Amino acid sequence: VSAPGGVGSPGGSTVGRVGVVGAGQVGTALGMALRGAPGVDDVAVADRDRGRAEEAAARGAGRPVDLEEALAADAVVLAVPVPEIAGLCRRRGRDLRAGALLVDTGSAKRTVVEAMARWIPEEVHAVGGHPIAGTERPGPEGASPDLLRGVPFVLCPVRDDPAAMERAAAVVEAAGARPVAMGAADHDRVLARTSHLPHAAAAALALVVRRAGDTLPVRDLVAGGYRSATRVIASDPVMVSGFLTANAGEVRAAIDELLRGLEEVRAALDDGPEATDRLIGRARAAREWAAG
Amino acid sequence: VSAPGGVGSPGGSTVGRVGVVGAGQVGTALGMALRGAPGVDDVAVADRDRGRAEEAAARGAGRPVDLEEALAADAVVLAVPVPEIAGLCRRRGRDLRAGALLVDTGSAKRTVVEAMARWIPEEVHAVGGHPIAGTERPGPEGASPDLLRGVPFVLCPVRDDPAAMERAAAVVEAAGARPVAMGAADHDRVLARTSHLPHAAAAALALVVRRAGDTLPVRDLVAGGYRSATRVIASDPVMVSGFLTANAGEVRAAIDELLRGLEEVRAALDDGPEATDRLIGRARAAREWAAG
Repeated sequence: VSAPGGVGSPGGSTVGRVGVVGAGQVGTALGMALRGAPGVDDVAVADRDRGRAEEAAARGAGRPVDLEEALAADAVVLAVPVPEIAGLCRRRGRDLRAGALLVDTGSAKRTVVEAMARWIPEEVHAVGGHPIAGTERPGPEGASPDLLRGVPFVLCPVRDDPAAMERAAAVVEAAGARPVAMGAADHDRVLARTSHLPHAAAAALALVVRRAGDTLPVRDLVAGGYRSATRVIASDPVMVSGFLTANAGEVRAAIDELLRGLEEVRAALDDGPEATDRLIGRARAAREWAAG
Repeated sequence: VSAPGGVGSPGGSTVGRVGVVGAGQVGTALGMALRGAPGVDDVAVADRDRGRAEEAAARGAGRPVDLEEALAADAVVLAVPVPEIAGLCRRRGRDLRAGALLVDTGSAKRTVVEAMARWIPEEVHAVGGHPIAGTERPGPEGASPDLLRGVPFVLCPVRDDPAAMERAAAVVEAAGARPVAMGAADHDRVLARTSHLPHAAAAALALVVRRAGDTLPVRDLVAGGYRSATRVIASDPVMVSGFLTANAGEVRAAIDELLRGLEEVRAALDDGPEATDRLIGRARAAREWAAG
């Protein structure tokens, strides 16, 4: 594959100039990881909040620039909350250079891929992207250059454009992550369960405990179980609300599955100690299978 | 308060010889924390599995002894899963010395306090206890001397016996923890929500993700949210099943509250982005209130 502007092709070509839009945790970490990586000529980072772009730059994420300059790069990465990605595609899609790569980092992919297909010109190579990484610490101060190291970075095709997938994979590899090609619908089904549902469950759990606190001394007795189970809800609320909304259909289905799972737990309690032993054993094996 | 046998009284008296029954994570940590503490003359640790008692001893939790010797101490701590505590009280309550202190570390207190009231002779000072500490790493190898440092250690009265509460508090303070007096029923209501419910939710979540794995590539994309939300289910399954069963009534009520909480999340998704923003904001504030 030969790529326009000397940018991106598998096996030995370059990523070129990278423009990161959004100096949150992931955007900053991506800038840090890409700066100085082989094939990367320059990393520029833009944010609606100029101070945040400067903070990211101070942490080593690249030059702070305005949106125009970031969008003029050879490889543009939109690292903003999911609902903002569609808006940027619509309003600024025509500002991208012909032959440039566009990829994002949002945690819901179907709405993003649809927006890219609709608003990004055909001569731009557009790919939906999602690194399976991130902690609850928002902003540049939560970023580290190792955040993306070795993590799966999902890439979802927008059009029949193999060069787009290859060039996106080159960016992902330059950042030290592992490209995983997958359709947007499958991605959203999986993430609804492995990420969005834990956020929904954490929200519900936090509300239950808060209400119990009206009549009981729960604050004195918050156990580690509560802390780890609700950790994710401490994340940037705009990001969380954004991906829950963007993936609402699958999240609703996943919530229904969780309701049934909780009813199974309750039924085991009704059935007594042996049924509860069996259920906990099954759940433990299930966790071991997924994350052991 | 003057205590029989020169053991335990507030302000300057001694804990005496401690016998820990159960060399799990908490029993081992307690032995480690008490060994050499002011007022503690000796720490002995027993376990049904003699090798585990020796492992705990090797980590600094005290002398490995058999059950008889541990039960002959001035202060006996039952650090075994909740269902075993009642059995030990019934079978071995009469082996305790007159004037000795008996306390446990189980995560459900009503059934324990009832068993103690029924089976422990009046001349023994019995108290239900629960340190709000512990991680998912079971056994002596999960223990550290700092596990209990500064954590709330709930003490639940069994009978009208202020000396029992004072002596239990002295043991708790010698271990570096913070005694919190509370009725067993209130304890169980609180812990059902701050600990047992996160375990139930983690079990349900693990089952949902396991099932999704039958048709979707979830294993490649397990996010940090899933890991932290389900961490607690990696704990010792006998312990988890034990406290869920022992506190089944309150856990059932808490599960019902979580079902309603999840329905709130679903309703917010149905209502759209602004309702979802508001719900996530409320959940975040709730978590901040409890664990911020």
